[in-house]
Amino acid sequence: MQLFYEPNFDSSATSISINAMESRHISKVLRKAIGEEIYVTNGLGICAEGILISNHPKECKVEVKTIIEEKKPNFRLHIAIAPTKANDRFEWFLEKATEIGIDEITPLLCDHSERRRIKAERYEKVLQAAMKQSLKYTLPILNPMVSFSDFMEMDVKSKKMIAHCEDEKKEKLFEAANRDNLILIGPEGDFSIDEIKKALKYQFIPISLSEARLRTETAGIVACHTVNLIRSI
Amino acid sequence: MQLFYEPNFDSSATSISINAMESRHISKVLRKAIGEEIYVTNGLGICAEGILISNHPKECKVEVKTIIEEKKPNFRLHIAIAPTKANDRFEWFLEKATEIGIDEITPLLCDHSERRRIKAERYEKVLQAAMKQSLKYTLPILNPMVSFSDFMEMDVKSKKMIAHCEDEKKEKLFEAANRDNLILIGPEGDFSIDEIKKALKYQFIPISLSEARLRTETAGIVACHTVNLIRSI
Repeated sequence: MQLFYEPNFDSSATSISINAMESRHISKVLRKAIGEEIYVTNGLGICAEGILISNHPKECKVEVKTIIEEKKPNFRLHIAIAPTKANDRFEWFLEKATEIGIDEITPLLCDHSERRRIKAERYEKVLQAAMKQSLKYTLPILNPMVSFSDFMEMDVKSKKMIAHCEDEKKEKLFEAANRDNLILIGPEGDFSIDEIKKALKYQFIPISLSEARLRTETAGIVACHTVNLIRSI
Repeated sequence: MQLFYEPNFDSSATSISINAMESRHISKVLRKAIGEEIYVTNGLGICAEGILISNHPKECKVEVKTIIEEKKPNFRLHIAIAPTKANDRFEWFLEKATEIGIDEITPLLCDHSERRRIKAERYEKVLQAAMKQSLKYTLPILNPMVSFSDFMEMDVKSKKMIAHCEDEKKEKLFEAANRDNLILIGPEGDFSIDEIKKALKYQFIPISLSEARLRTETAGIVACHTVNLIRSI
């Protein structure tokens, strides 16, 4: 089963007009014929099972047969993480986090950040590709990059946790993980002392992910998998 | 703290001769001076804390002050995994598995394998770099590539598990994980029916890693992290 992504439809749709990029792929690359079965997700939790009624390379059309709703997990996970200097490492994180399960990602600009600007469009494509490849129907939300201080001010309902490397009493993530989780992952040089103090002031709980010393993108995946695993037990 | 790798010494060493590659790095790139503190691991569980007594670019010498022994984990993990077609994906697995914790890796040649030859020397370099970067003193063992059938014949003491995608009763890895684990991870097209039958005949227990559909290298990391996490609780 191959999955396509078209955000502009909902569960009441009887037909779907596919965006130009996916249409070109369906028509010119895969050369799908009229009458063929096709699956399209809107990235918002549903998948339309349908029949291709037009294979025009600029706008394919699908007649909807069934709407499948994705089962909602029993938890929510938002990771705010400092993008790595090397783009491929951060893109690995985006891809793997989507495969394993994540709701929201916020790129953080921290004191020790090695990357101060992000390629949002590129990251979006990585998330879309990973969603389709894993046959998931929900696209993780990718927020704009935000500074650590600005992020502290944001009002969130989630249980707030910060994974830092300083020597202090920390709760293990697998014990702290909740139904609604927000986890901060710092840059390669860790969060600054100021940032840690600020996070504690804003009621972030210090957590530890592992005994091992992990790279930023590995810490992101370990945090993501820990929450998914613990919530599935 | 920066860690260097030189396999040819043991805990009785009073001085260490560093191999050419690391010597060049120490002498020409980092320009370490005589008298500087230096840490060297033999990749077999120990780290020598010492003083640089010669910074010759072809053979640095270290006078050993202290030998530090790595604490042994309470479990063992061997993953036999079909290398992915794209080398960077497999190298990503090698790096992340080393950061998180793994003892042994066997590249498997399966019926549906997309990669039938491996770049062993390149993979060794990835493992060494990951070990040093994570400040670990034990280099994961990388075995030569072996066919699935030949691997079945090998005598192992570990609890034998196979993660396949066919629809059958499977135990969850986090429940099955043991003190001594061998986990088989198949190629993108999964193990063949023949291979699964053979594994069952050789007492491999079918396990599931996740509800989600994971790429080969992601499955490898999920298996690796699951064992590490469960054995740490």
